[in-house]
Amino acid sequence: MSVTHPQGFGAAGVAAGLKSSGGKDVALVVNQGPRYDAATVFTANRCKANPVLWSEQVVKDGVVRAVFLNSGGANCYTGPEGFQTTHAVAERVAEHLGAGAGDVVVCSTGLIGLANPREKVLAGTDAAYAALSTQGGDDAAHAIMTTDHVSKQVVVEGAGWSVGGMAKGAGMLAPQLATMLVVLTTDAVASPQDLDAALRAATKVSFDRLDSDGCMSTNDTVALLASGASGVTPSLPDLTDAVTRACTDLAMQLLADAEGSDHEIAITVQGAATEDDAIEVGRSIARSNLFKAAVFGNDPNWGRVLASIGTTKAAFDPADLDVAMNGVWVCRKSTPAEDPAKVDLTSREVTVTVDLKSGEERATIWTNDLTHAYVHENSAYSS
Amino acid sequence: MSVTHPQGFGAAGVAAGLKSSGGKDVALVVNQGPRYDAATVFTANRCKANPVLWSEQVVKDGVVRAVFLNSGGANCYTGPEGFQTTHAVAERVAEHLGAGAGDVVVCSTGLIGLANPREKVLAGTDAAYAALSTQGGDDAAHAIMTTDHVSKQVVVEGAGWSVGGMAKGAGMLAPQLATMLVVLTTDAVASPQDLDAALRAATKVSFDRLDSDGCMSTNDTVALLASGASGVTPSLPDLTDAVTRACTDLAMQLLADAEGSDHEIAITVQGAATEDDAIEVGRSIARSNLFKAAVFGNDPNWGRVLASIGTTKAAFDPADLDVAMNGVWVCRKSTPAEDPAKVDLTSREVTVTVDLKSGEERATIWTNDLTHAYVHENSAYSS
Repeated sequence: MSVTHPQGFGAAGVAAGLKSSGGKDVALVVNQGPRYDAATVFTANRCKANPVLWSEQVVKDGVVRAVFLNSGGANCYTGPEGFQTTHAVAERVAEHLGAGAGDVVVCSTGLIGLANPREKVLAGTDAAYAALSTQGGDDAAHAIMTTDHVSKQVVVEGAGWSVGGMAKGAGMLAPQLATMLVVLTTDAVASPQDLDAALRAATKVSFDRLDSDGCMSTNDTVALLASGASGVTPSLPDLTDAVTRACTDLAMQLLADAEGSDHEIAITVQGAATEDDAIEVGRSIARSNLFKAAVFGNDPNWGRVLASIGTTKAAFDPADLDVAMNGVWVCRKSTPAEDPAKVDLTSREVTVTVDLKSGEERATIWTNDLTHAYVHENSAYSS
Repeated sequence: MSVTHPQGFGAAGVAAGLKSSGGKDVALVVNQGPRYDAATVFTANRCKANPVLWSEQVVKDGVVRAVFLNSGGANCYTGPEGFQTTHAVAERVAEHLGAGAGDVVVCSTGLIGLANPREKVLAGTDAAYAALSTQGGDDAAHAIMTTDHVSKQVVVEGAGWSVGGMAKGAGMLAPQLATMLVVLTTDAVASPQDLDAALRAATKVSFDRLDSDGCMSTNDTVALLASGASGVTPSLPDLTDAVTRACTDLAMQLLADAEGSDHEIAITVQGAATEDDAIEVGRSIARSNLFKAAVFGNDPNWGRVLASIGTTKAAFDPADLDVAMNGVWVCRKSTPAEDPAKVDLTSREVTVTVDLKSGEERATIWTNDLTHAYVHENSAYSS
């Protein structure tokens, strides 16, 4: 049920002919009020898709009536024509709702440089509006899938209110938002300011710490809409907690479905002087193709972990590093310790723990292994 | 003949039992004078192997009598025992030469965390000294190979003097030196200061611009030894030119032999405001697994190029970028231009050209594609 679990939301997912497979490719999520407060986070990539350029303007007043999403084409670097398609879609949704186009967020996903056929998208908009339902969350979640194998949905219950969410993303999963589209809904009463604070706190420790393949997308969007339909006003900490739980749950679903992955790897860096140091070190390991290929081969190659740590500016003593894999401390004080043969990497979930012994801070970065299937999927994606 | 082409050098390559294959695994290059001037560049990785920690001290006085190299084990993060092995090897070489251990550079390559059996290495040292020959360059070049498929050797002729060189490296090829061991020799008369200036200028535009897989090694060493045996003192520009040609030639040999690669990719960024901007943009593209997998699949996916450019801090207008692949301008002003179907990526050499339209500077970064064979080789390396 995801985005339609909280009160005050309708959703739909329909097939508009954008995907060559004929599958569902247009989704619509409508906030039916009584309030229309919203917050968003977009990709940090300087090369942004047309829907992102549009939506950045839409959200400035903290009011969003609906989110339109399509798969089958990213509408990125498609020129003025592509921007006009985004605008036309927002206008069409607004007409149906009796609202202004400036209250409609638009998201697209698929290949960069591929224009979406405008008439098909507009026809899909009409069909999605006609299919709107308070039971439509599942259809919507399916319509935004690209290389995803499963839909990603979540519900978190509050006291008399709830948060629902859906996500898509399987590749280009990297920093400052894993590449993805996410719509979160809540029937809590919350101001745009509180929604923004809650959403930024939540994405900072969830999507921002997912680094599946180091590639940052041009289309990332996370939108949080609040209908106020429950009549309940949670405290900001309670709201933040619920949104964080929803985002973390969706992030783990993205990680588990990452393109071609055999392993989910949680890299925890402890003993860091600062949280930023912990994140930098974790990310450097998550970006090492050699380390990721070793995990794919079930090889506890801790030398590749140390080689990655050494490329960072974090505070540490190169002669005093500890590294554990799946709880076995294979390296202590930068020398071989427990026998790497004790490390069983056959399970899907792998943990790497690094102790920098330079402070009290810590952070976890999540990544995937580098597999034959990843190479295959990403060499064949557009053909 | 490589390192033994210039006058005044002996070299050898022998099997000391470090490699399980039984192949040659110990090399020795000896400067027979009359001068012993030298310069070196080491890895920028903060996690350095024992031989690097040792050799950094050796070269401080600008005098090097010999370079010992072994494959079969990196002697990195092997503790005090590992450092003592490095020291013992230098002592043994020095005894043979009647010199001090402080004039012997030591280089090791292979797995991190693997200690080299000291007695085998010392026996190999004796055998290598016994086999020293002015014809030994080829043997030495073969003895330093790890996952290399071919040995890398070069000779550049000056006017009455020459530069010879050998290199090893096939993976962990990345920034601030591609991961590798390189020994260059010359019979020119040159001061340590001039050798240092020439070597730094040469590596900056050759090895430093090679980014095969984004992984920086713990053992990188480039050593340049000058015997003065020709009696000719070239100008600094002439010396720099010859060393640069030797380094560039070896860098291209490393690129062509990179683990599992199907393509060599030259990424040229032009129209940059600064050379650093051009390098940053080129490197961001070279680090994109999605782009590299697309090239493996012969897919001219320029969207992945733009997505990489957008992650940098370089000066450019996101709405005004041009991208060519193999000379076909598939993207102009950040919109689709020539038909990507015109781009034939079946040849081994691929060019990507990016015009940032923000200045007059340019740089080329070289990388490889991301292939099934890369994943295979690096998941199976230590097993």
